[in-house]
Amino acid sequence: MNHPAEQNALRRPFPSALLDSLKAQFADRVSTAQAVREHHGRDESPFDPQLPDAVVFARSTEEVQAIVRLCAEHDTPIIPYGNGSSLEGHLLAVQGGVSIDLSEMKDVIAINAEDLTVTVQPGISRKQLNEALKDTGLFFPIDPGADASIGGMTATRASGTNAVRYGTMRENVLGLTVATADGRVIKTGTRARKSSAGYDLTRLFVGSEGTLGVITEITVRLYPQPEAISAAVCAFPSMGDAVRAVIETIQMGVPIARVEFVDKLAVRAINKHSNLTLRESPMLFFEFHGTESGVKEQAETVQEITSENHGTDFEWATRPEDRSRLWNARHSAYFAMLQLKPGCRAVTTDVCVPISRLAECVMETEQDLLKSSLPCPIVGHVGDGNFHVAMLLDPAKPEELEEAESINHRIVSRALKMGGTCTGEHGVGLHKMRFLVEEHGEDAIGVMRAIKHALDPRNMMNPGKIFAFEA
Amino acid sequence: MNHPAEQNALRRPFPSALLDSLKAQFADRVSTAQAVREHHGRDESPFDPQLPDAVVFARSTEEVQAIVRLCAEHDTPIIPYGNGSSLEGHLLAVQGGVSIDLSEMKDVIAINAEDLTVTVQPGISRKQLNEALKDTGLFFPIDPGADASIGGMTATRASGTNAVRYGTMRENVLGLTVATADGRVIKTGTRARKSSAGYDLTRLFVGSEGTLGVITEITVRLYPQPEAISAAVCAFPSMGDAVRAVIETIQMGVPIARVEFVDKLAVRAINKHSNLTLRESPMLFFEFHGTESGVKEQAETVQEITSENHGTDFEWATRPEDRSRLWNARHSAYFAMLQLKPGCRAVTTDVCVPISRLAECVMETEQDLLKSSLPCPIVGHVGDGNFHVAMLLDPAKPEELEEAESINHRIVSRALKMGGTCTGEHGVGLHKMRFLVEEHGEDAIGVMRAIKHALDPRNMMNPGKIFAFEA
Repeated sequence: MNHPAEQNALRRPFPSALLDSLKAQFADRVSTAQAVREHHGRDESPFDPQLPDAVVFARSTEEVQAIVRLCAEHDTPIIPYGNGSSLEGHLLAVQGGVSIDLSEMKDVIAINAEDLTVTVQPGISRKQLNEALKDTGLFFPIDPGADASIGGMTATRASGTNAVRYGTMRENVLGLTVATADGRVIKTGTRARKSSAGYDLTRLFVGSEGTLGVITEITVRLYPQPEAISAAVCAFPSMGDAVRAVIETIQMGVPIARVEFVDKLAVRAINKHSNLTLRESPMLFFEFHGTESGVKEQAETVQEITSENHGTDFEWATRPEDRSRLWNARHSAYFAMLQLKPGCRAVTTDVCVPISRLAECVMETEQDLLKSSLPCPIVGHVGDGNFHVAMLLDPAKPEELEEAESINHRIVSRALKMGGTCTGEHGVGLHKMRFLVEEHGEDAIGVMRAIKHALDPRNMMNPGKIFAFEA
Repeated sequence: MNHPAEQNALRRPFPSALLDSLKAQFADRVSTAQAVREHHGRDESPFDPQLPDAVVFARSTEEVQAIVRLCAEHDTPIIPYGNGSSLEGHLLAVQGGVSIDLSEMKDVIAINAEDLTVTVQPGISRKQLNEALKDTGLFFPIDPGADASIGGMTATRASGTNAVRYGTMRENVLGLTVATADGRVIKTGTRARKSSAGYDLTRLFVGSEGTLGVITEITVRLYPQPEAISAAVCAFPSMGDAVRAVIETIQMGVPIARVEFVDKLAVRAINKHSNLTLRESPMLFFEFHGTESGVKEQAETVQEITSENHGTDFEWATRPEDRSRLWNARHSAYFAMLQLKPGCRAVTTDVCVPISRLAECVMETEQDLLKSSLPCPIVGHVGDGNFHVAMLLDPAKPEELEEAESINHRIVSRALKMGGTCTGEHGVGLHKMRFLVEEHGEDAIGVMRAIKHALDPRNMMNPGKIFAFEA
């Protein structure tokens, strides 16, 4: 399926001299094999792959720096590649160039348990990181659906189910090592919890989607494993009831760890995929973290709120294995939903609105989706005001993509009108470039463009993404 | 007292044509009176004022934009002015120019109680904001010692006593309106709680100290007033004991709202200034927020930790008026300390280190201070790893400034060696420019400089601050 946005970017020539230099230094860690390039020229978006000219498997910051310097000699694009789980076309090599595969850079460089921080290489995945932390009593909370790499999560400013309590990558990255387009390596930030020392370069690179530099080390915050955890599900007669319960919970300041909305169709998909027997109705998944008594108290408060909003009694997942099963099911929702329509791909929306507008936004969207011929399950990190519609389409039918795009556009416009954003956590990639302009306006995009020009004047770093830019 | 850093910046000529244009538009809201210029050419740092050529009292974003455009026609520096409470020379007009006084822009533009957000003009102070919120059941937690303006707090990435629980301005600003050097007005961010929509312009301006644009509107997060609040003080035989108790509290993940360290000398100052009778020994001030039972539980856990570290039993400030008195006393610490040495001014250090190094850093500093002839009380937001030494010096004695600067340099070097930052919350201003280079390295400063060049190529916006830059 072709990407619907205009592709004003053209593939650049790929100089054989660059390939020779890369091979001289990286030997069999450089690949131009079709299969390898295909794997690296796509992501989880519905768009056809656009292949890089070569893939290099880097093993250190110094190697990344060397690749950047070689590419700089030839004005050749560079696309950092983690686990390939992005959703908006971030990894497509629209101008060709070199994909730097960071999957071999997955060391835990330093666990500073006393400081509640860890420094890692970008290729480690969130599950691998938590596995490495398991004897420390600490955990890293950010959990997008996929088992994404920490580097990719940093680059897209990812969040997930725990963000309502623990924040997103924006709040949880303390510092970075970055290879910049001019071939330098910089460190942004220290391990101190806060700082007023100059421009916030850390947060400039967080969410920059590879367009300003290649992230080679990340220091993130960790949290003590809560003394007590409990999880529950609660079914509602309508989406509006479920969402209103969430809004009241947030407004009361209950320090809930997770609150996830799943609509009827998504519950059906999850049941089938994860072999569960949840009631097929709009549903909230909750998790409470704290002391034994704190968790009990939170749960009682929230149960009261849900009851007032016509929710069922909580069904508890008390044993750790039941909790894991529940959350694994939630994390697999994307893949579960894909199975609702064999052979389909998904266009996923990702708006986030101020919580006071969430019920209105979700219910207007529900009405809108009734008119669609596509299956469109809805899930959401509703505590943040963020929800996703997965529009399942047949990649062989362009009219289905067109329909999905037009629904997506209406959802984004609705969210922007309500004071929200076109993307809560997936990022812009290729797919939301026009929405970004709608959201920020040309003048603010102009400021972003000026920053891009300042740090990457020759447009080498993941060119063609986020906003239109010419070297 | 002259500022000790080299002043390579020279005053620029102030064109009479600019003054005429400003007067034509702003009439008696333009002042060139000596007293007004003196008031605007200084801050709470110990340095002699450096006067702007004119002060303009702006009343709207459009007026700020008009001033920026007029100044741009003449390459004239612009310094935004809030409440004048910065500590590192941020407001000194080292190259002359126009001080834009924002104190008349103090409207609350919109309280969105359901979304836990408020949008304000930059001139409103933190106390005025909380006064405006008092019937909503919500509060804004960021509280630097002074009653700073929200605009100034944004520009310096301020924090205060509540940051350990609620974060700093970095975490609490959702979006900004900014008048940029090229005469445009942009909006950064929406009211959504999270977003992955492009570069994080909000956090680029937060902490940029007026060097990238003039902030004219700020949207910040609010929090529900906790159901229960309790505060207590606890005395310790030594600084090390007090700090170790804090470290253990943080590492256990107790969601403490405030934990402030005050040394013996600072307690003496506070007692005298606020008419209290606290025991003159190293001391922690605590505050707990939560439900009734949650607060009780937190307090019990922390009391156990402090007892193991040789702390006294908690002395409770249970009535709201006692709590206010306690925290007003803590907030007045800076002014209280100044009274320890009549006629003095203070050089204040502001390092922040990873919490595992805090005890070591504070105790080495304590030893170092024993050698000094200056009174040097210590206070700190120790839950964040941040502490301040106020070095009280006679402005008529250059050798005292020299001594203070050399202590400050040793404290910063110690903190940087321990993985910390030269400023946790005060910012760089004039005074920490050389430390910024030590902390980040020339390459990272180069990236900051490139951004400055991209957004303010003619160096109009608070020139001469944060890092050396020439147009």
